[in-house]
Amino acid sequence: MSMVGIIMGSDSDLPVMKEACQVLEQFGVKYEVTICSAHRVPSETSRYAREAIDKGMEVIIAGAGGAAHLPGVIAANTVLPVIGVPIKTASLSGLDSLYSIVQMPRGIPVATVAIDGAANAALLAVQIMAVADNDLRHKFTTYKGEMARNVMAKNSRLQELGIGEYLKLKQEQ
Amino acid sequence: MSMVGIIMGSDSDLPVMKEACQVLEQFGVKYEVTICSAHRVPSETSRYAREAIDKGMEVIIAGAGGAAHLPGVIAANTVLPVIGVPIKTASLSGLDSLYSIVQMPRGIPVATVAIDGAANAALLAVQIMAVADNDLRHKFTTYKGEMARNVMAKNSRLQELGIGEYLKLKQEQ
Amino acid sequence: MSMVGIIMGSDSDLPVMKEACQVLEQFGVKYEVTICSAHRVPSETSRYAREAIDKGMEVIIAGAGGAAHLPGVIAANTVLPVIGVPIKTASLSGLDSLYSIVQMPRGIPVATVAIDGAANAALLAVQIMAVADNDLRHKFTTYKGEMARNVMAKNSRLQELGIGEYLKLKQEQ
Amino acid sequence: MSMVGIIMGSDSDLPVMKEACQVLEQFGVKYEVTICSAHRVPSETSRYAREAIDKGMEVIIAGAGGAAHLPGVIAANTVLPVIGVPIKTASLSGLDSLYSIVQMPRGIPVATVAIDGAANAALLAVQIMAVADNDLRHKFTTYKGEMARNVMAKNSRLQELGIGEYLKLKQEQ
Amino acid sequence: MSMVGIIMGSDSDLPVMKEACQVLEQFGVKYEVTICSAHRVPSETSRYAREAIDKGMEVIIAGAGGAAHLPGVIAANTVLPVIGVPIKTASLSGLDSLYSIVQMPRGIPVATVAIDGAANAALLAVQIMAVADNDLRHKFTTYKGEMARNVMAKNSRLQELGIGEYLKLKQEQ
Amino acid sequence: MSMVGIIMGSDSDLPVMKEACQVLEQFGVKYEVTICSAHRVPSETSRYAREAIDKGMEVIIAGAGGAAHLPGVIAANTVLPVIGVPIKTASLSGLDSLYSIVQMPRGIPVATVAIDGAANAALLAVQIMAVADNDLRHKFTTYKGEMARNVMAKNSRLQELGIGEYLKLKQEQ
Amino acid sequence: MSMVGIIMGSDSDLPVMKEACQVLEQFGVKYEVTICSAHRVPSETSRYAREAIDKGMEVIIAGAGGAAHLPGVIAANTVLPVIGVPIKTASLSGLDSLYSIVQMPRGIPVATVAIDGAANAALLAVQIMAVADNDLRHKFTTYKGEMARNVMAKNSRLQELGIGEYLKLKQEQ
Amino acid sequence: MSMVGIIMGSDSDLPVMKEACQVLEQFGVKYEVTICSAHRVPSETSRYAREAIDKGMEVIIAGAGGAAHLPGVIAANTVLPVIGVPIKTASLSGLDSLYSIVQMPRGIPVATVAIDGAANAALLAVQIMAVADNDLRHKFTTYKGEMARNVMAKNSRLQELGIGEYLKLKQEQ
Repeated sequence: MSMVGIIMGSDSDLPVMKEACQVLEQFGVKYEVTICSAHRVPSETSRYAREAIDKGMEVIIAGAGGAAHLPGVIAANTVLPVIGVPIKTASLSGLDSLYSIVQMPRGIPVATVAIDGAANAALLAVQIMAVADNDLRHKFTTYKGEMARNVMAKNSRLQELGIGEYLKLKQEQ
Repeated sequence: MSMVGIIMGSDSDLPVMKEACQVLEQFGVKYEVTICSAHRVPSETSRYAREAIDKGMEVIIAGAGGAAHLPGVIAANTVLPVIGVPIKTASLSGLDSLYSIVQMPRGIPVATVAIDGAANAALLAVQIMAVADNDLRHKFTTYKGEMARNVMAKNSRLQELGIGEYLKLKQEQ
Repeated sequence: MSMVGIIMGSDSDLPVMKEACQVLEQFGVKYEVTICSAHRVPSETSRYAREAIDKGMEVIIAGAGGAAHLPGVIAANTVLPVIGVPIKTASLSGLDSLYSIVQMPRGIPVATVAIDGAANAALLAVQIMAVADNDLRHKFTTYKGEMARNVMAKNSRLQELGIGEYLKLKQEQ
Repeated sequence: MSMVGIIMGSDSDLPVMKEACQVLEQFGVKYEVTICSAHRVPSETSRYAREAIDKGMEVIIAGAGGAAHLPGVIAANTVLPVIGVPIKTASLSGLDSLYSIVQMPRGIPVATVAIDGAANAALLAVQIMAVADNDLRHKFTTYKGEMARNVMAKNSRLQELGIGEYLKLKQEQ
Repeated sequence: MSMVGIIMGSDSDLPVMKEACQVLEQFGVKYEVTICSAHRVPSETSRYAREAIDKGMEVIIAGAGGAAHLPGVIAANTVLPVIGVPIKTASLSGLDSLYSIVQMPRGIPVATVAIDGAANAALLAVQIMAVADNDLRHKFTTYKGEMARNVMAKNSRLQELGIGEYLKLKQEQ
Repeated sequence: MSMVGIIMGSDSDLPVMKEACQVLEQFGVKYEVTICSAHRVPSETSRYAREAIDKGMEVIIAGAGGAAHLPGVIAANTVLPVIGVPIKTASLSGLDSLYSIVQMPRGIPVATVAIDGAANAALLAVQIMAVADNDLRHKFTTYKGEMARNVMAKNSRLQELGIGEYLKLKQEQ
Repeated sequence: MSMVGIIMGSDSDLPVMKEACQVLEQFGVKYEVTICSAHRVPSETSRYAREAIDKGMEVIIAGAGGAAHLPGVIAANTVLPVIGVPIKTASLSGLDSLYSIVQMPRGIPVATVAIDGAANAALLAVQIMAVADNDLRHKFTTYKGEMARNVMAKNSRLQELGIGEYLKLKQEQ
Repeated sequence: MSMVGIIMGSDSDLPVMKEACQVLEQFGVKYEVTICSAHRVPSETSRYAREAIDKGMEVIIAGAGGAAHLPGVIAANTVLPVIGVPIKTASLSGLDSLYSIVQMPRGIPVATVAIDGAANAALLAVQIMAVADNDLRHKFTTYKGEMARNVMAKNSRLQELGIGEYLKLKQEQ
């Protein structure tokens, strides 16, 4: 029944935010994806946040770009932890999104991840839910172990192949 | 009956936003000042914006700092022109406020002025109201004339006194 | 008879500024487009600003890039509200344009919108003209409603199709 | 038994990080404060993170300035959610701290708050722990309500006193 | 008869621009100081630039801060070389002034010096006038020689006194 | 006999610096182009600067990117006016070049133009040489007149063709 | 027996870091390349640093992007000099990497080179090893001489061919 | 006989650079301090670098602010490793110094430390000299041990005293 809400300001954010969905699926965590602009449909956005707990959401991931108010507006309307994903922008490369999301005033935090860091937003959501869910914590520990083994496998392969061969094979993939 | 709404996210913005009030008084334009945080009292903020027209507001000036969402949230909830004043901040000098206010998405503009530019926000409000108010336009023209004469008086004084004397007198003021 | 003046510093700004024209046409607002550099034809630029009221202009939209002085020079020579559009630049991505337009000194405001935000400049012009024009305000209210319905339609579609299918169809458009 | 770990790279961060302690006390949440530099005592830092779960920690708040590696190093060594507080610096105003904390690579998120945002870090920790703790969630809801009433009380007072009197009284406090 | 024109947007720029005057006096170069805002008195500013040659000016030094259009506006209205001095600003430390002055479009250069670099602006003016004035070139060569001897004298003194004593004596000056 | 020296740190700067040559040719001003790195051939660079006057150079244009020391090193070794062209860089877009060139210490000015502004560097050189050369000043006045007529011709064409047709023809060129 | 350790956070850094290998080969300096993320395999990273001296390493070159903690973590765990290479990133162009590497706290320096400056990192390693190795110092002196001759050969060629021909031949290469 | 050369562009850099001297004294490493501006005394600066090896220097530490060319100019004229210290500046907080020092072109590295990081520059010099000096390496290892114990002592004290008492005692020092 517990679930993550994923919300974004525009469908142009979907190719980035999709990574959050994929990570959650990998962990078997339920989620719901919504397009809902803080500026174009403000009432729906507030309602979304106010109804989140009743829908069974435990964490909300909000992605937005430019004057990226969505995560803050969501955080203003719920007591759930809100994770903000600053989306890269055409002119300011996401610096505008980052500042608009991370520099929240005292009282209303938004847990901000890297520019275009949707995958990490999902992992953070998993970590948060795992605080009270030992199975999920176990899965996360396993995930980190695989990630570590993956790095070490790459290194072993590099030692075997040498730089030139390694890069050639990587490009072919 | 027509009026300017001045709204700010925190009473720490008041020393800056006060300048907007002083300019409007100088032009005999009615205004109403409100403290109303987009993040701490989101419903009141939306209501403020939705009721603005019925209260006789023609322009809204919104000042905020950091992840400065107030102007955008106001703009999302009214069709009135909204002027945003980015307030200077301790760590990022108001660059965070500026980006959060000016980089609004297509559909919901905020007319942004300089960091801490509350006086100019009021002058812009006057210019906007003067579009349909010849008396106000006349007052604005007079204001610009005085401003020009003031610059030229300073220059004349500098020519008379020389730099050293001019700066000494200026410091004594 | 009332009209918006659209002016830009170079014909390389035209592909961006064209969006302002399209928005104004959508609202049935008359406009006039002019190429007129503050630096290359300074006298013509001042004259343009000084004659704007007599031509029936109510708002001026000025787009410029780099050391983007055009909006400020226009504002110096008219009492009409001036909207500045910072154009994205090759080396500094429009940050130079933004600072040159938004950081105007006390007395001469320029209503600044986002980098390349020509569409929003036009919407702001409509909002300004709508202060004294109930028909136009009504149109703007309708416009916002359509924008909202559009967001919600996209969301409904996403719920129906799922992310994968949604993105596939979007790319085909 | 459940607890928040607060860790910082240097005792010069303590005046900022103290605010996190005060917020947690306000909510009756247990915490432990540690000075432990990622660069000067790397082994102790890793051990701190690896032992955190066994000590009953549910969330870790890590504050650091400059090349602020502490939050990331902690996150690398635990599966608990880690909240990073970028500390303002003398030369780059905390922009270095912010980038060093928020731009974490895929796999190892750090939940970043505003520069010097220790109070918000604590509130976020409370929100995270409240996901599985209804009493704490209730307290957080109450906290937000008080915050809202506080804003509205300030506004009422401003309406009563007017700007001049309000600012005079504020300065006297 | 030949002269340098020094112009600035506001009398708040005078403490910085005064250094340019002092340098020119040191070289025996005539100059004229004027306060003349590009935004507040645009016609006077253009006229200043158009009359500069007839007044015997050979170079113009223009200092301005924020959306610093003065140097560009002067350059637009004269064929004389124009040197721009970006004045440090309260919120953006003069980065706004620098971008507004240096990023001029093709066709209208402004010779930009460092933020608050009025002394160097004057030295550059001297170098420019010295292109056709051997006496002035000789003076500039002498000036550089003295500057060099000054650096070497400081170094000798440091070798004699040691760091501690050197710094103590320096602070006493 | 009088001449402009054009020097650059690397042959990768040549495509940008070539524009300076083209402008000088247009004005019939002699020039000499040299590749000479301040870091790779420091003695040759100093010698170039020290011999510039004897070769008949009146102005030196120096282009460099990254830690762009060439203009400053040239300026340190000659009394001629030096114009610096910050070249756009791959990672920092030329901001590194700009800061390295414009922020020169008191005593050694470099006349800085826009990032990649080689054409303006040449125009500035012409303006400097024109201080004592009435023919050249006349040519520059003519050049500005043509530039102005060119802007106005574009505007006339836009009025005739309309935006759509204008942009279509422009793309075909 | 003496050797340089080259370590990087991800195999996506390999195309840049490969240049360091090529430079070291050119100087006949032994090296070992390792992929080892400070965040994904923290224990292996510390161990790498702690075992470096015993493996015969004299200098370590560490490349990383984003919140680039690898060089600092290595430096925390060894007394060898560590050279950091900030890798260019998609959103912040490597500014995040640069700040995360260069702004190290007192006590734990990282010798930082330019963004993507892997070749210079290797040259710096050579210079460091050459402090106690006269043969290597001699090779470095020769290298600088060749570099100088190369610049001068390019210049001679430019003088022979002229700009147009030079650029044409360069493009054909 | 082996020695570190410490050089700075101006005696205003001395209060920062003094920390490098103090660190070297702590390690018993000989050093020589010189004031020598790359721009004001260019020949002396080159000569300093070219004679460094003969004087017994093994590493050079160069501090400079603004368009900070000194480290690069030194590096251009010697094969010794050069460590650059970007000095904090009034307007750009040392970002100009940092970019001017770290972004060196291929072939001429400068080992850059943090803004105002003179102490770390000296530690890096010690690490470099320790590559071939086991006594010095031993001292550095001891230094790191003391630094670690110092951090842990602070932490123990904090645990004993609590935050309030700890901060009170710290302020009294």
